[in-house]
Amino acid sequence: MDGKAPIDFYFDFISGYGYLASLRIDAIAARHGRGVDWHCMLLGVAVMKKMGLKPLLETPLKGDYVLRDVARYQRRHGVEMARKLLDPVMDPRPAARAFCWVRRHHPGRAGAFAHAVFDRYWRLGRDLSSPDELGALAGPLGLDESALRLGIDSEESRADLRDSVAASLDRGVFGSPFVFVDGEPFWGSDRLEQVDDWLARGGW
Amino acid sequence: MDGKAPIDFYFDFISGYGYLASLRIDAIAARHGRGVDWHCMLLGVAVMKKMGLKPLLETPLKGDYVLRDVARYQRRHGVEMARKLLDPVMDPRPAARAFCWVRRHHPGRAGAFAHAVFDRYWRLGRDLSSPDELGALAGPLGLDESALRLGIDSEESRADLRDSVAASLDRGVFGSPFVFVDGEPFWGSDRLEQVDDWLARGGW
Repeated sequence: MDGKAPIDFYFDFISGYGYLASLRIDAIAARHGRGVDWHCMLLGVAVMKKMGLKPLLETPLKGDYVLRDVARYQRRHGVEMARKLLDPVMDPRPAARAFCWVRRHHPGRAGAFAHAVFDRYWRLGRDLSSPDELGALAGPLGLDESALRLGIDSEESRADLRDSVAASLDRGVFGSPFVFVDGEPFWGSDRLEQVDDWLARGGW
Repeated sequence: MDGKAPIDFYFDFISGYGYLASLRIDAIAARHGRGVDWHCMLLGVAVMKKMGLKPLLETPLKGDYVLRDVARYQRRHGVEMARKLLDPVMDPRPAARAFCWVRRHHPGRAGAFAHAVFDRYWRLGRDLSSPDELGALAGPLGLDESALRLGIDSEESRADLRDSVAASLDRGVFGSPFVFVDGEPFWGSDRLEQVDDWLARGGW
């Protein structure tokens, strides 16, 4: 898009705030002639192992607040989600490996695939930890279902996911969503207005 | 102001985000015909004891991000601070007890006193853990310096601070700044736009 570098969008599919931000990031980037480069990270590695913190919803006081904060955002912006924050959380790794496979073999569809996973997990409330559920995403995106299913369990995708998570940590990514604009980091769905401002001004 | 309930603003004087929010909260409230009711809390109790978390700046990855985030906010909004986030942190309890004394004995000046402490600690970079430094705030606000100094170490102020911290935890306050509008909680300086929106719409 106009030769400008895309903005980097880091996410974990199990992140509710990541889902909410995913609904807005394309429009924010496009408004400034940018594309979006999608990258997966894993909260379980960044938050729990690297930072030594509890999961958000298990943190005293903050857990209750997050439930209310997300519900308030949903009402304000009309976002319906069949999945509730307190529902059992899927193992995010199969979906993340599927994303890595699409990113490597069909990079032009990585964003569309990420949207499809987010949509199916959060809006429709489906568990995407099985190859069957993930495979069903292939057809509508023009991807080969059997190749995707093989990709999910391939050593190549496992290595790509490990590399992607390691690269995210090296870059200082510790949450979802996490955005870089020309190297400048922004954490959280509540920083998207600032991302917009940064893009409009070319930084400050 | 127009008979509408004030909004509640919870803060810890050692919180940089609390300081940045304190610079905006009066104007946001006034725009909607509201006053501000100031309440002190202690991050050391809420975050470290109750939530079991590390201080923000000692949290891997997040610490570096916070330094950058605050500096970026300062550049954007022209906020100068002689105090740096990595400077030694004062014991916030004497200033919090001074605030409790003002709030009890001169409630109409509680907000002005909170602003004065924040200003002196962050903009001027002074340590306010001594009665001398705190006493110097009295004169310009029309308060009796010797009464304030006695108040800082009084059993009454100690009890008021304990009660204030306990009440904040009972209400779910776990960070600084933390705002309630008609009972609705908002955490963080990056939620002030939402506070403004909530006040404008009367909630949603």
